[in-house]
Amino acid sequence: MSEYVYGKNSFFEALNNKRIIKAYVLSDQEIRGKGIDYEIVDRKRLDKLSRSGNHQGYVAEVKEYELAKVDDMIRDKDGLIVMLDGLEDVHNLGAIIRTCECAGVDGVIYRSHNSVRVNDTVAKVACGALEYMKVAEVTNLVNTLKDLKKKGYWVVGSDGSSEQLYTDLDYDMNTVLVIGSEGKGMSRLVKEECDYIVRLPMLGKVTSLNASVAAGILIYNILNKRQ
Amino acid sequence: MSEYVYGKNSFFEALNNKRIIKAYVLSDQEIRGKGIDYEIVDRKRLDKLSRSGNHQGYVAEVKEYELAKVDDMIRDKDGLIVMLDGLEDVHNLGAIIRTCECAGVDGVIYRSHNSVRVNDTVAKVACGALEYMKVAEVTNLVNTLKDLKKKGYWVVGSDGSSEQLYTDLDYDMNTVLVIGSEGKGMSRLVKEECDYIVRLPMLGKVTSLNASVAAGILIYNILNKRQ
Repeated sequence: MSEYVYGKNSFFEALNNKRIIKAYVLSDQEIRGKGIDYEIVDRKRLDKLSRSGNHQGYVAEVKEYELAKVDDMIRDKDGLIVMLDGLEDVHNLGAIIRTCECAGVDGVIYRSHNSVRVNDTVAKVACGALEYMKVAEVTNLVNTLKDLKKKGYWVVGSDGSSEQLYTDLDYDMNTVLVIGSEGKGMSRLVKEECDYIVRLPMLGKVTSLNASVAAGILIYNILNKRQ
Repeated sequence: MSEYVYGKNSFFEALNNKRIIKAYVLSDQEIRGKGIDYEIVDRKRLDKLSRSGNHQGYVAEVKEYELAKVDDMIRDKDGLIVMLDGLEDVHNLGAIIRTCECAGVDGVIYRSHNSVRVNDTVAKVACGALEYMKVAEVTNLVNTLKDLKKKGYWVVGSDGSSEQLYTDLDYDMNTVLVIGSEGKGMSRLVKEECDYIVRLPMLGKVTSLNASVAAGILIYNILNKRQ
């Protein structure tokens, strides 16, 4: 299946990511010789293709991002999968995918009806990491956790009210690390699937970290503990 | 000294942060009864006050953010100051200030001619942390480091090419942690002042983390080592 992007930024992001199937432009001045298939069309056609969006003269039919399967992330030993429970900010999603790639995480999972999903903004914030990282969309996080537990994974969530510090575990097990949403943390049903719930120490007056920063601290701590 | 902000977002951010000295608006419909001093003016006056910026009918004279002094951040024992060397992204600045507040860091220092400085966007991203965090602007980072070293601080920088891992140090010393810019890392002169240069393990193909994520990992590791 294909989708459409419009507006200069999204268009050239897609161009850089080699995702353009066909471009529709008012003028080919900036895309000539770039090796993409394009058609020069009138404003009316662009308005229609972009559903009256602010296309700035650029619309493209693009390939969807290729997603992975959860089964492709599974390992016998030292597995680490990051699950995002309701993340709402594309910048956080991009930064977390980047961190996961840097830390050698096996894959990132989120709900397919999540408010954010991989797109060109995420690809940009991820600084190229999206290309190398396995990302899977699933319809039901709880079922996915149940399934991963059957396959030998332990589920670690993070919640500010937990007694256990994130540094207390040795993570000597195949681990699914669950990152909650920016405002509300983990949902109740996902929390119920956690084998461990850990917290980051909070010494100040503000009670939570940015979600991508918290994810980075938790992920790199697992790396340290395993080394 | 005061400055002006304009546009709905910036205006209401400043209003929420109680920084408005005087508001200039086309209509008082949305600000009546909010306890601020305001004047209803014509579009021409707003154009002038905002220097023809996109004011959307809202301009305000605001208080500058109150900055701290480096001397107020100094401690005898277990001191931790974060210095930002050339950070370019306001979201990273906000997220780092938030992390520092959560981790009990004594203060954040950056160069006064930096491309980013505390403003309403930073305040928003910092989620209230800016109010509780000591932030200082200095004209010369190298001189500030020399001065802090005289006062018993050790300087730890981060660079991907270092041999030493960030987890190798025990941080049992008053520490200035230097965070480099997003693209270029630390500047040469700042790097020369470092007593230690450490690196984060990078196991993937992408060679660096988002600056605020890297800062979070480094800061929380220091917290762990000291506990």
